[in-house]
Parts: sequence; C-alpha cells; structure tokens
Amino acid sequence: MTATAEAPPVFSPYELIHRKRDGGRLSPAEIEWFISAYTAGEIPDYQAAALLMAVFFRGLDADELAAWTRAMLESGEVLDLSEIPGPKVDKHSTGGVGDKVSLALGPLVAACGVTVPMIAGRGLGHTGGTLDKLEAIPGLRVDLGVVAFRRQLAACGVAIIGQTREVAPADRKLYALRDATATVESIPLIASSIMSKKLAEGCEALVLDVKVGKGAFMKKVDDARVLARTMIGIGRSMGRPVRALLTAMDQPLGRAVGNAVEVREAMDLLRGAGPTDLRTVTVELGAEMLVLGGVASGVEEGRARIEAAIASGAGMECFERMVRAQGGNLSGLPEADRVVPVLAERSGFVQAIDAEEVGLAAMALGAGRRRKEDSIDPAVGFVLEKKIGDPVERGEVLGLAHVRDRPGSEGPLRRFMQAFTIGDEAPGIGPLILERIS
Amino acid sequence: MTATAEAPPVFSPYELIHRKRDGGRLSPAEIEWFISAYTAGEIPDYQAAALLMAVFFRGLDADELAAWTRAMLESGEVLDLSEIPGPKVDKHSTGGVGDKVSLALGPLVAACGVTVPMIAGRGLGHTGGTLDKLEAIPGLRVDLGVVAFRRQLAACGVAIIGQTREVAPADRKLYALRDATATVESIPLIASSIMSKKLAEGCEALVLDVKVGKGAFMKKVDDARVLARTMIGIGRSMGRPVRALLTAMDQPLGRAVGNAVEVREAMDLLRGAGPTDLRTVTVELGAEMLVLGGVASGVEEGRARIEAAIASGAGMECFERMVRAQGGNLSGLPEADRVVPVLAERSGFVQAIDAEEVGLAAMALGAGRRRKEDSIDPAVGFVLEKKIGDPVERGEVLGLAHVRDRPGSEGPLRRFMQAFTIGDEAPGIGPLILERIS
Repeated sequence: MTATAEAPPVFSPYELIHRKRDGGRLSPAEIEWFISAYTAGEIPDYQAAALLMAVFFRGLDADELAAWTRAMLESGEVLDLSEIPGPKVDKHSTGGVGDKVSLALGPLVAACGVTVPMIAGRGLGHTGGTLDKLEAIPGLRVDLGVVAFRRQLAACGVAIIGQTREVAPADRKLYALRDATATVESIPLIASSIMSKKLAEGCEALVLDVKVGKGAFMKKVDDARVLARTMIGIGRSMGRPVRALLTAMDQPLGRAVGNAVEVREAMDLLRGAGPTDLRTVTVELGAEMLVLGGVASGVEEGRARIEAAIASGAGMECFERMVRAQGGNLSGLPEADRVVPVLAERSGFVQAIDAEEVGLAAMALGAGRRRKEDSIDPAVGFVLEKKIGDPVERGEVLGLAHVRDRPGSEGPLRRFMQAFTIGDEAPGIGPLILERIS
Repeated sequence: MTATAEAPPVFSPYELIHRKRDGGRLSPAEIEWFISAYTAGEIPDYQAAALLMAVFFRGLDADELAAWTRAMLESGEVLDLSEIPGPKVDKHSTGGVGDKVSLALGPLVAACGVTVPMIAGRGLGHTGGTLDKLEAIPGLRVDLGVVAFRRQLAACGVAIIGQTREVAPADRKLYALRDATATVESIPLIASSIMSKKLAEGCEALVLDVKVGKGAFMKKVDDARVLARTMIGIGRSMGRPVRALLTAMDQPLGRAVGNAVEVREAMDLLRGAGPTDLRTVTVELGAEMLVLGGVASGVEEGRARIEAAIASGAGMECFERMVRAQGGNLSGLPEADRVVPVLAERSGFVQAIDAEEVGLAAMALGAGRRRKEDSIDPAVGFVLEKKIGDPVERGEVLGLAHVRDRPGSEGPLRRFMQAFTIGDEAPGIGPLILERIS
C-alpha cells in the first residue's frame, strides 16, 4: 500500500461476461471491480444479469468465490467487535419449516460464555424467518442500530437484529437482481451472499445448519454438502473457521409452525421441555459453537454445557434479558381467536409430513408472506400433534390450527391435513443429523 | 379468430427464464409474448439479458426457434413484393474478409430474371459490410425508403439498401442487448436474427453463404453446418426454401480488402476478369439462386446462365442501372493518396494468409470500424498480389496498400505483411466450396 491514491483499474464488463460464459476465470481484481462498479451504478443491470446467469452455468472457483465474497463484504460496513471480550460465534440456517432454533440457541450459547452477534432474516414463501418470529413478542425491536447492537452484545452476550442498510449493500443489490432473473439457485452465489453478510456482523467463527429435504431449499444431500463445503472454503479463505451440520427437513422441525406459536415452543425448550428433534438440533449446533468459541474442548463437552444451561435455567434467563433489551414484553404474546383441531381421515401410521406443504398452509393462514411486501399475522399457525412414526386413529387430532375468526381458513386447514401421509405400516425413521462437515 | 378483442396472455418473465435455464421448452405463445413485451419496453433489459444467456447455454428447439423468428419478423414491417412479377430470391453471407460477392451477384441474378431485394449490413471489426462498400461510390444512397426500394426492384430487378427502422425492431433491440451481454455467439440467436430480417424484405427464397475458417465468425465446419441447418429449418417452418453453401474463409476472398478497392474488383468480375475464387463463389451462389427462383432447372444450368450474364455484359449493365437508381456516380470512385507496396521478407511459398489479420490491418488503415460509431475511409485498403500457393521471392510485392498521406500506416502495413505465412513447401490448397446443404 502506498500513500498516493491510485486510479482503480477499469475492465470491460463485456469481456468479463464473455470469459465467464466460456468457462474462464475472473481475476480477484476483475471481480472486485465488477462488484464495486455494479454497486456504484456504473455497470447496468443487464450486464450484471448476464454475468450472473453465466456464473449460474459455469460456477466460481475457490479464488473467484473468495474475491466475490470479499468484494460484497467490503462494499459496506464491517462490524468490529474486538472491544467485546471473549469469543464471538454465530449460526446460520439455510431455512426450513418450524425452524425456531436461533431463538433458543443464541441465549443458550451466550449463557455458556460465547457472544452471539446474530443478523437474521425474514420469511418468504413456505419458510419462516427468525425476525418475524421474534417480532411476535410485543414491543420487540429488531432494527437496532450498530451502537445498540454492540451495547446489547456486551451486556447480554446475544442480540438478534435485521440486516442494516450499511451491511453488504452489494449483496442487497445483487440479490434483488438474482431474484428477478432466476439466478438465485446457484451454490456459489448463495454461499457468497450468506458469507458476506455473516462475516460483516463481526463473528469470528460460524456454524451452519444446512437443511436438506422436501421442506428445504436443498432437496438432496449431495447439493447440501457442496453448499456446506463451499461456505467452509470461503470461511477458510477469510481466516474464519466454519463448521456445518446437514440436518433433515422432510417434516417440520419441532411441532409449532407460525410465529407466536414458535416463540412458545422455543421457550418450552429453554424450560427443559419441548420436542426432542428441536432439542437435538439445538444442542448439536450449540455444542459446535462452543467448540469453535474455544469454551468446550470437544463436541461431547459442548453438548453437556448446553444441556446444563437448559437445566439450570441460565439459557432462559439470557433469553429474557435479550427480549427485554430489545424492548419486548413476553407477557403479551398474541393469541389467535380460535384453536381448531385438524382431524385424521384414516387410521394408520404417519409415514410422511410434507414440510413445504405445512409451510405453505401456514403462509395461507397468514403466518407467512407470499410476496416480500405482504404483512404477516403473528398469532396464527399450526401445532402438530403427530409426527412421522406416530400411530393415529381416524378422527384423532393431527394438529391444532391457530386461526382468526374470519372466513377462508378451510383451505389452509385442508392443505395442512393433506400434508400428512398416513399408511398401514410403521415407517422407518431417518436420522436427524445427516452429516457433520468441518 | 373472433371479432372481439381478446386481452393478450400475460406470462411471468421470471418463470420463462427459470424454465429455459433448467433446459425446459417455451411455448410459441410465451415466446411471442416475451419478444413483443420486451420490444414494447414492458420487460426490463436485465430479464431479457438473463433469458438470452440461458438461451446461449440451453438453445432453442425447432418450434421455439420458429416462434422466436416469427415474433421478431412480425414486430415490424414485412414487405409484400407480390405486385412485382417473377421470383424474388436473396442471398445472405455470414461475413468475411474481402467478401464483395453481393455487389456483383445481385445484378447478375437480376440480369437472369430473378428479382433480388437485398437488405444488407455494415462492417464491424475485421469484416467489411456491403453497405460500406456501396457507399464508396460517390452519391450512392442506401437509405431508400420502402417506396423507392419497391420502385427500384420493379425497374432494375435489384436494390441493396440498409435495414430500415421499420424492419424487425425486436431484432434491433435484442441485438443491441446481445452485443452488450456477450450473447451474440449463439447459433439459434444468430439464425433467428438473420432470418427475421431476410424474411421481412419480401424474398420468397434465400441462399446462404456460410463462411468457415479463421477469417469467419464460424471457425469450424461443424458449427457452420449447424448454423446453416438451423436457418434452413426456420425457412422450412415459414414456407421459404433456403439453401446453403459452406465456403472457405481462411484467406481473404478475391484480392481487394477495403471499400472502393472492392467495388473495383466486383466490377472487374462483371467485366469477365477478377480473381478466380471470387468468381467461383459468385457463380455457385448465383446458380443456386436461379434454381430457387425457378429460372434454371438445375445448378449446372444456373452456372451457365450466370456465366452468360457475365460474358454478355448484362450483369454489368444491371449493376450500372442499380448504382444510377441509387444516386451513385461510378466515375468518381475515391482513390487513396498513395499506393505503397508491401514486400516479402523471405522467399518460399505462401502457405497461409490470416484473413482476420488482413481484415484488422485494413480496419487499422481506416477501411473498417473498431466500434459501431467510427467512421470509415472509403479509399484505403489492401490489394493482395499473392495468395495461398503462390511462390514468392524475398523483396517481391505481397500486396499493395492504398493509404492516406499521414503518419500511422506503418503498423497496419506490418500487420498485413505478418498475416502471410511463407514456407519452403508448396502447400496443399483446400476446396473453396466446402459443402452444399439444402
């Protein structure tokens, strides 16, 4: 680095598109220039769209990916949390149905001495979002500024906020373009988008929960593994350790699917109750975070410490502190007008529960968004009474629908019911934690 | 068809991009809607760019291609030449170096009783354009309106004009986007672009000259064959017979490369002189046009009639009529300031002449355009004295450079000289007409 300002190199967008189209490599300097010139409005959307589609087909190698992620990361503010003592580790989930893990996990890990600076997202389509769930708590704010975020992390060890406008603006602009040009489903573009945002929030290490199955973005283990390894590779190139769990998302995680209903379930977990599958995923992810944070020597010890934070109530205490710090009042969690049982139409064993269909039924009830601009109803949702492997009698309750007193909930209830496959045989039940990658 | 206006179907651009990206088919209605909505400005450039790049990778099948071409054709004015008696047949060349065929071929075919309504293009990079060559003739106008074009066709049997703003506006808009997004080099997009313009000019049949080799857009025979077959398929779907010749473009065609120099060479041909290779290609293409026009029963007879039109001077007479009708004055063809010989640096046989390099050297002299907005100098160019297979002595003239009296022509002259490969052995000479496809 010299003190004199050098003119940045200027490349030809056409030449970059052409080379990537033909399977060639872009240099780090070219990628950095493209991302920053696009963000500055100096490259038109149509050339960026063509490059994104070429990347969709040709991919990015490890060096390109590192440069791409770094350029997006450096397009905005990068939080420096070094004045907060102790390790800072975050978790990212690729999104599923009933995935309220972050709500309990953040406080549990913080209670074990690892700071959790978490920038979370909103739901769209069949998947919910951590921010929407948190906002079901009356008064709770997720739009803290950077100063309040930092203060809360120092005081509580955990804060969950939305992406600020200052973080990775290049990713925000590129994501909007990908969303309009069918270039979202590209592993390098997904990986760099996630990593640029996560690395901007000031964490030193990251645990990934890559969901696999019908209710997840990644339908196949192979694809999920590639995505996990891609993100781990980016982390390595940035000097941030990343570990990943591949976890099953064929049926919803836990029993609650909605917003307030999921907050209640997360609190059940923190009280030592709650569904086993939710607890298993939370404990396993927490154990990895403690290992990465250096407060547990191995996964075994990590699990024990997370379990202890549940048993002692330390996790719950931390959760309550976090909610209070963000302005929330747990005594006023919204309730639906009615709770309607959804009944089985035949007897047998639950062989499958289509998580995507359950998510879409919840969305149709009002718990989720069809389009980004839709508003949501925090009170509505479903609570499953039966999960895969459970025996069921005709007329028995499959789940409870939390609904509003207004017409139009018959369709979603029917959709929820039809998400269940009931057969004569007791099904084999697959593993919940499919793979551990580090 | 009903008399009541039906609202046109509206599809989702996202969904079309997504499907094509994943290798699916678009319906004719979807393609028609996309092209017309894009032309009308209802679909943004970035979505069209993403679709074009997806088409680059996934292609278009025969039905999609027919719909794509038809939509571009029908986006603008389609000339109806039915009031002009007799057959109307045109020729299209994919572009090469020294390709002045159209200048002589149009008049020759017209002299044989087939009307030639030709909409031609301009040069870019190493390839010249028929319009630029014609405009080297002082006063000659290529921007005739449709009325004048029709009148001239009726009077002379041939007219060569530029694309009017009314013809295939969808192609014009899409081409500009392809040019900026590295999606030009896609066989279905090339084929539909050419065919939509050619079918709009009112010809009933078309002969293609698909150039193959180092100086051509298509470097390999296989690719050229695919392009030819693709255009023949489009013609079939539109009920217009199309035939193609694949012709070699490793060295420049004929000897002149420039504008006025090429007009002079085309006139030499019409006088019964001129280089053999140029004459062969012209006669072969003309023979095919006469067969398609139904005035010759076979290629053999077609050749004889074209040769006769050269020998009798009927072709030359027709050329002079065309030039006069378009306002041109042949007595004032521009001359360069100086003619400089370019000498061989060694003795041997000419084994190769890199046509692209010769084209780029001519462009650098001022005969061509680096960018679309550049102006050209009609007087400058090269005339080759040696072609592949010719023996050459050190210090002998390889070619004559027609240059301006100003500094800066050393580089182009050197480039021209270096385009020649001179070796000890007499090279084998490949065929000029590589393949005939119908």
